[in-house]
Amino acid sequence: MAIRSLDQLAEHVKAKGTKTRIAVAVGEDQNTLGAISRAVSEGFVTGILIGSQARIEDACKLENIDPAAFTIVNITSEVAAAKEAVRMVRDGEADVLMKGLIGTDKFLKAVLDKEKGLLPPKAVMSYVCALQIPKYNKLLFVTDTAVLPFPDLNQKIAMLNYSVKMAQRFGIEKPKVALISATEKVSAAFPASMDYAIISKMVDRGQIIGCEVDGPLDIFLACDPSSIAIKGVDTPIGGDADVLLFPNIESANSFYKGLMLFAGGELGGLIQGTTKPVIVMSRSESAASKYYCIALSCLMAEEK
Amino acid sequence: MAIRSLDQLAEHVKAKGTKTRIAVAVGEDQNTLGAISRAVSEGFVTGILIGSQARIEDACKLENIDPAAFTIVNITSEVAAAKEAVRMVRDGEADVLMKGLIGTDKFLKAVLDKEKGLLPPKAVMSYVCALQIPKYNKLLFVTDTAVLPFPDLNQKIAMLNYSVKMAQRFGIEKPKVALISATEKVSAAFPASMDYAIISKMVDRGQIIGCEVDGPLDIFLACDPSSIAIKGVDTPIGGDADVLLFPNIESANSFYKGLMLFAGGELGGLIQGTTKPVIVMSRSESAASKYYCIALSCLMAEEK
Repeated sequence: MAIRSLDQLAEHVKAKGTKTRIAVAVGEDQNTLGAISRAVSEGFVTGILIGSQARIEDACKLENIDPAAFTIVNITSEVAAAKEAVRMVRDGEADVLMKGLIGTDKFLKAVLDKEKGLLPPKAVMSYVCALQIPKYNKLLFVTDTAVLPFPDLNQKIAMLNYSVKMAQRFGIEKPKVALISATEKVSAAFPASMDYAIISKMVDRGQIIGCEVDGPLDIFLACDPSSIAIKGVDTPIGGDADVLLFPNIESANSFYKGLMLFAGGELGGLIQGTTKPVIVMSRSESAASKYYCIALSCLMAEEK
Repeated sequence: MAIRSLDQLAEHVKAKGTKTRIAVAVGEDQNTLGAISRAVSEGFVTGILIGSQARIEDACKLENIDPAAFTIVNITSEVAAAKEAVRMVRDGEADVLMKGLIGTDKFLKAVLDKEKGLLPPKAVMSYVCALQIPKYNKLLFVTDTAVLPFPDLNQKIAMLNYSVKMAQRFGIEKPKVALISATEKVSAAFPASMDYAIISKMVDRGQIIGCEVDGPLDIFLACDPSSIAIKGVDTPIGGDADVLLFPNIESANSFYKGLMLFAGGELGGLIQGTTKPVIVMSRSESAASKYYCIALSCLMAEEK
């Protein structure tokens, strides 16, 4: 049975009875510690904090967390801490990598290191969110909200495959992927719409499998069956999309943030393309969304 | 006192006691007739329908509307009807132009005609929506959701001025304009963010007046005061934006459609840049939004 909400996701990873080992690079801030300590206390995560032991203990004190709940690896340099966290995941000593109190650029530099990082050669790194909206009857997988500013055709295909793979992990056998534009018309005025036409034909030829794909579609045609009827557009998505692939980061980012603020949205998101799950959370995400990011990483870390 | 909701907008135009004359190009469909007949019956609009009298009467019958409520100009060719509707507005026989059952391209061709159209030489044509979201404490003016796919710097400045002018018509003396991106950082990776930096400096120099402007900002920093505190970003918008200017149509369009579907949003929108208001509505908008588009055109048609 498919996982249809973020709470069902958390229940699923709790019910497995195994602990996912998460290595946190520079886990010295209250924000990060608060998020991971809930998962640790609920029993589905082991937290390995790589950073300054003194600063970790100080932050734990401020959050009323017992530092003994974690394994602490005392490395005071943030660059060295990030490298060690990546090494642990690469060598199988941890299952998931998580960013703590370190700049995203420095953190990703360790992840992207060609010799010692977590991204296979030529792999595309991208970001997929599982977005929960009270008025939609299931989760909506949204990409790319955070990593690729203006994806080209090759990157769009990678985004599609990552989001389909994630949706399948939630038990959706054949996810419906809507390729989002401002209209359903293919036009040279919208370069993404031409990439979408190419992707649609690749799907017809069996070059992309495991999903229904159609685009360009606007948000109404992707997510609202009544708009399909009004506009008379023939699409296998049928206003019932599982995945929304956006043409640029500005559209994906504004879409999900609008729904977080004004539609009661929550999300779990994860970097995709790496050999193991990588969690990078924004400070401005809600506490609940931070917890769901961790739960999502546990689902995606499962052996299949 | 500022108009803070779309119903207040409708009350305002009803309370004026004058009738705005709307010329509908090819007003032969139930959809268009239903929208305008409510405004006519509420007494703030005179409807002039240019199109096939027989088809107009048929459509009225299906909607249970008395065709005698309108002035009908019998022109059976849709191109000729569009030209005549534009001429009436241009010659002061009507105050507002509205698209009926005619393709947007054909309709805009009449609007954009250099000799006989409604767009001044070199003027930028754009689109502004007044978006009402139950969870936001006032209206949010959003641009450009429908006309300019990828606005350049000059077009962004025009969009800014149009949306500020509209917000001012709602009684907001100094609208707060957030220039939207995926992040608040200026970066060569985001060309729009560099345009935003330029616009911000133009505001500093008094080249753009009558508003507070800041960008790049993401949706959280634009519309949520608590995100300002968390991120520590110093901005005059303060999470209290009146206007959101988006970097491309895909982001503006997906943002508002997401909120229409999932956050109880309603809107009124209008083409900007023309000498008189021009209404172009999508079939997939709600009946309420169609009515608000008409009310908005009446507000913007007021002599100042």
